[in-house]
This record gives sequence, C-alpha cells and structure tokens, in this order.
Amino acid sequence: MNINGIPTRTIWLAADGEGVEIIDQTRLPHDFVVVRLDNLEDACSAIRDMWVRGAPLIGATAAYGLALALRDDASDARLALAYERLLETRPTAVNLRWALDDMRALLAPLPAAQRRAAAYARAAVIADDDVANNAALGEHGAAVIAALWAKRKAAGATRMNILTHCNAGWLATVDWGTALAPVYKAAEAGIPLHVWVDETRPRNQGASLTARELNWQGIPHTVIVDNAGGHIMQHGLVDLCIVGTDRTTASGDVCNKIGTYLKALAAHDNGVPFYVALPCPTIDWTLDDGVAEIPIEERDPAEVTHIAGRAAEGGIVQVQLTPDGSPAINYGFDVTPARLVTGLITERGVCPASRDGLLSLYPERRPNV
Amino acid sequence: MNINGIPTRTIWLAADGEGVEIIDQTRLPHDFVVVRLDNLEDACSAIRDMWVRGAPLIGATAAYGLALALRDDASDARLALAYERLLETRPTAVNLRWALDDMRALLAPLPAAQRRAAAYARAAVIADDDVANNAALGEHGAAVIAALWAKRKAAGATRMNILTHCNAGWLATVDWGTALAPVYKAAEAGIPLHVWVDETRPRNQGASLTARELNWQGIPHTVIVDNAGGHIMQHGLVDLCIVGTDRTTASGDVCNKIGTYLKALAAHDNGVPFYVALPCPTIDWTLDDGVAEIPIEERDPAEVTHIAGRAAEGGIVQVQLTPDGSPAINYGFDVTPARLVTGLITERGVCPASRDGLLSLYPERRPNV
Repeated sequence: MNINGIPTRTIWLAADGEGVEIIDQTRLPHDFVVVRLDNLEDACSAIRDMWVRGAPLIGATAAYGLALALRDDASDARLALAYERLLETRPTAVNLRWALDDMRALLAPLPAAQRRAAAYARAAVIADDDVANNAALGEHGAAVIAALWAKRKAAGATRMNILTHCNAGWLATVDWGTALAPVYKAAEAGIPLHVWVDETRPRNQGASLTARELNWQGIPHTVIVDNAGGHIMQHGLVDLCIVGTDRTTASGDVCNKIGTYLKALAAHDNGVPFYVALPCPTIDWTLDDGVAEIPIEERDPAEVTHIAGRAAEGGIVQVQLTPDGSPAINYGFDVTPARLVTGLITERGVCPASRDGLLSLYPERRPNV
Repeated sequence: MNINGIPTRTIWLAADGEGVEIIDQTRLPHDFVVVRLDNLEDACSAIRDMWVRGAPLIGATAAYGLALALRDDASDARLALAYERLLETRPTAVNLRWALDDMRALLAPLPAAQRRAAAYARAAVIADDDVANNAALGEHGAAVIAALWAKRKAAGATRMNILTHCNAGWLATVDWGTALAPVYKAAEAGIPLHVWVDETRPRNQGASLTARELNWQGIPHTVIVDNAGGHIMQHGLVDLCIVGTDRTTASGDVCNKIGTYLKALAAHDNGVPFYVALPCPTIDWTLDDGVAEIPIEERDPAEVTHIAGRAAEGGIVQVQLTPDGSPAINYGFDVTPARLVTGLITERGVCPASRDGLLSLYPERRPNV
C-alpha cells in the first residue's frame, strides 16, 4: 500500500541484499520508524516484541529470520536451533509454524553451502505469495462487499459501513492485508465505504494501526471503543463485519484477537453478515474444535494495567490505569465458533465456515478414502 | 463501605451543614480527593464532569444540588432554573429526573421561606433511602449468589467467579452499590468470591473505580480488558454476571454502560446467569422498548482518542492513542434486551426481566383496569 503516495511493503530486503528491513509497528501510529534486522536474535525480538505482528507478516518475518540465522553458519545444528528459537516467539499464530516448516523442508535436504542462498530466495517467495494471496482474497472479498452494497444502495444508503477488529490490514501482512484487502479493493472499485475501527484493547492495534493505515489510504473511518460494536449494530449502523484470523480450524472455527467472538455474537444477534478473511496458511487442518484445541496466548498483564500514548508535549509516555494492588490477566485471542461466521474469504474464493466449505475450495485436503 | 477501615459514604453534608462533600472520582484510582460543593454551579459540574457518576449517586447529588441552589434564593424562578440546569447535565440516567421531580414536587407548593430547609432534609432522605435500598438489594442478590455457590461448591469449585462491567459499586451509589452490594453481602456471609473486573473503556470505571473499591474492601479480583469476557465465559471461568443499570424499561430492557450488551450476549451463549441489580428509581415505567426508546448519550470523542493514567514519576498524564486525523465517536451506553437478562435484583427481591416480573414486585405500578 501507499505511505504518502509511495508504495511500501511491511518487510523487504535491505539494499545490501543481506539485512531485512521492517516497520517498527510498536512506534505507530505516532512515529514511522524502519528497523534493520541482521541476525536470528533480531528476528526473534521483532516477532516476540511485536515490532511485526499479524499472522501473515509473522510468517514472512520468521522465514527471513531463518535466512538471517544461516548467514554465518548453515549447519544442521544451526538450522534446528533457529527453527526452535523462532517457533517459540509466539504460541498462537499458525503461519509461524507453517513458514518455518516450509523453510526447513526445503533447506534440510540441501548441502549446507547452498542453504543460505536458498533460504533468502524461499523467504522472498513466501513474502510474494502472501502479497498475491491477499490481492486475490481482496478481489473475492470486494465482490462480497459489492453484492451487499448493491442491496444497500437500492435501499437508499449513501455509504457502506464495515466494522473490523484489531489490525488485519496491510500492516498485518506483507501487503494488502487480509480483512482490509477487500476494503481497499472495493474502495478502488468506487464503492463509498466507511470503516468502524475497534480500538482493540489491550494493545490497541485498531486505534493505532488500522486507523493509521486507513488514514494513509484515505478511507473514511471512525475509531470506537471495543464496547461500542453491539450498540451500533443494534441501530443499523453496521452493514458488514470483516475480521482476520490467526488460526482457523478445518471445521471453520476462527481464532482471532481477543474480543472477536463478542463482535460475532452481536453480528449474529442483529443479522449483520460476519466474514473472516484468511490466506490458506492460516488454516490449521489438524484441528477441529477451536475452543477446546487452540492454545490461547497469555501475555504480560502490564499490557492491561498500563498503556502508552503521545503526551501533549509530543513524547511517548506509558501510564498506569489500574490501582496498585489490583492484578490483571491478559488473554491474547479468543475463538469464534464457525456457527457465528457467515463466510470465509480466501485467496481461492468465498466459502461457508465449515469443513465442507473449506474442502470445496481446498479439495487437495480431502482425506483419501 | 470502608476506606482504610473508616466507614465512608460517597456524598455527605459538610461539617458546617451548608456545603456538600463528595469524592472526586475522576482522580481515582490514584488519588483520593474530597471536593466541597457550595452552589448550583458546583453541583452541575460535579455531575456533568463526572466527579460523581453512577445513576443513584447522580440522583443524590442532584437532590443536594437543588438544596444548594436554594441557599440564597428560594424563589419559584430559582427552583425552575435549578431544576432545568441540573436535568441537562446528563441525558441518560433516569434517577436524575426522578430525584429532581421528587424534590420539585415537595418544594414547589411550599412558601419560599421554607424551601431551603425542606430541600436539605429531603436530599438527606433520598441519600438515606438509596443506602437502605442498596443494602436490601444486596441481601437479595447475596441469596442468588449463595444458591449458585451451593451448586458450584458441590461440584468441587473452590471459589465463585463473578464478572461485572463498569462500576456499579459503592462509588456509583451513596453506599453499598448496586451490582457490588450482593458481592459485599455474600463476602460478609463467608462465600469465597473472585470478581472479574471489565476495565470498561472509554472511561475505565472498572479498572479505576471497581478495582479500587474491591481493593479497599479486600475482595479478590482481576482486571481484564472488555474484550476478554467472552473468552473466559467460553472456558467456564465465570459463574455469574452482575451489572448495574442506568435505566430499566417497564418491560425489563436494561440500559447500562456501553459494552454491557456484548457481555449479556456472551453469557447467554455460554449459559452463564446474567443478573442486573437496580434500586427502583432506576426503573422508567414510561418506556417499553429500550433499544428504540432510550436516548443514548454521545460523549466527547476525546474520551476515546485520549486516556489518562499515572506516569512513572507519579503524575497524572493524558496521552493520545489514535493517529492525528482519525475521528472517533463515543456512545456512552447500550441497551441489553430483557431476553438476555436472567433476573433483576431489586430492593424488594429478585424477579424475571419482564413486565410481569417487575409488576410482581411493584404491584402499585399495575395500571388501573
């Protein structure tokens, strides 16, 4: 997408062809800072400390992280260590394991001397594939928006109101985004859109990242607290919800940022279509029951008790919200059961959130009988 | 309730018998500051700027505000002006109008010379009635908790987990609280309780006020983001939800802090009992359909885009969360339809959230046929 008119991805090879550059997303929305990653440690920090976040971008960063790890030592032991170290940076995102497995399967059989170049090349393919997947997903999602807009316009509406949670935009992927790719494609097609942006506590990726990128792309939007979504759906102010996902079961259960489930309940209660956008690496074909089987990351309670923002004089300040002595707990994700999901938007098309729906788009996953 | 062992109400007559003292709740949880109100302007500011908040405390403050307004001039014109000025401070809370109507009905027929003393006396009665109502409500709610606890304990549970939203505690009333009165009474009865405290964006009354008062009373509790409630209910970590209400329709629809509806949906989806605690002045017998009929206050968007907390060096700092150029909107309340409410806890007992349920407790409200 564009930043001040300049096409920009969220991760790219540095000019020297060795380092990898990313946007430090913890500095957004107030500061735009590019960080160079030079080794395995840098890549692990980038994922663990959420300089990069979003399942697809985590996958691409892990792939490049493996390439960085092999710069000086491409031995079997180094490959195994780098795989393990990168895998443990974030527990929930399935793309992380998917990208690492993909890289390891390619690299392990190669002679050590060939691994480094192969790793860089494969990481680039993973990144490019993400861009292509998201662009395709965006077209399929834009068709969903266009169909709903045709009905709304006929009913006299002057704009299409879309609610999204967290950031599943360009900044969560290598380019285009997942939940926001359909928004960008529909906007390009001339549909008048307005996006309700859930601030998405505790890390406020909506208020900081989604608002920031919609702002950059010139898409009308309004930030709301996470508590407000039910009210605006009750009052007909939401035509469509689109969210991303960090992990989707083979049966269509969706694990996404904490609070997604509450919005799906409200959409269901008010007859608002609730779509989930995902490139196929996000599907975990080994899982059936999302609530029972997906491990939910518990993050630092300080993300709940404290928050950072820009003070009046311009500096970034962290402030404490809770009284001393009151503990907090910080669950990172929740699971939205497939029954609450209207449809899954993938790079291959749109399908019901069910095993049969997913297998209709990914027939190669059908068990051999 | 007690602050550091000293029984304290949230509003009281100053030692000189003229001024009225309150806790400036905007300074909580970090600072405990008592503010003296001396005139109508002070009382209007206290309500409008939320030094006091919570429907019952707003009612008591408005009553005292009318008394303060008549200190120097108890004419008909002054009474009318004070009534209007106080009424317009907050649009949603029905207790505000209830208290002002009660005061005006008493004062208007009196000779001006008698109004001042009568106003102070009546405001004291309104405050005392709130305390008595909440204590009674607390006993009825504690019986609900005790019945559920008996089942949970028999099933091997070691504590009872209660989720609450916003602050409907002691600090929202003159004493005891509404949603928290049953918690305090049940704790006194020896039931092991743990309270999940929704932080309640945008004003964070949960993280700041509910956590603060549970802390003062020694009740185990954990602060969570508003997004987390669905997840913990899915995983059996909530045995009961109790919230307050700013306005309840005659049919049992409940208008409470924004986000309450989302928690009620999650409770319903997971079979968690969802109770609403209210003293009778909160019932608006003139309304039937809460979603269609209750006006929802829109507050300053700056409450969404900015937040205040305690910086590392100890001072209170306000920080900006959203990027420049991203607008926000700030709905203060939402409506939970009666169908999602397990029961209403009132000072007269517990009833279904329905017209018949409410009329069974308040038969004097039955229309004459």
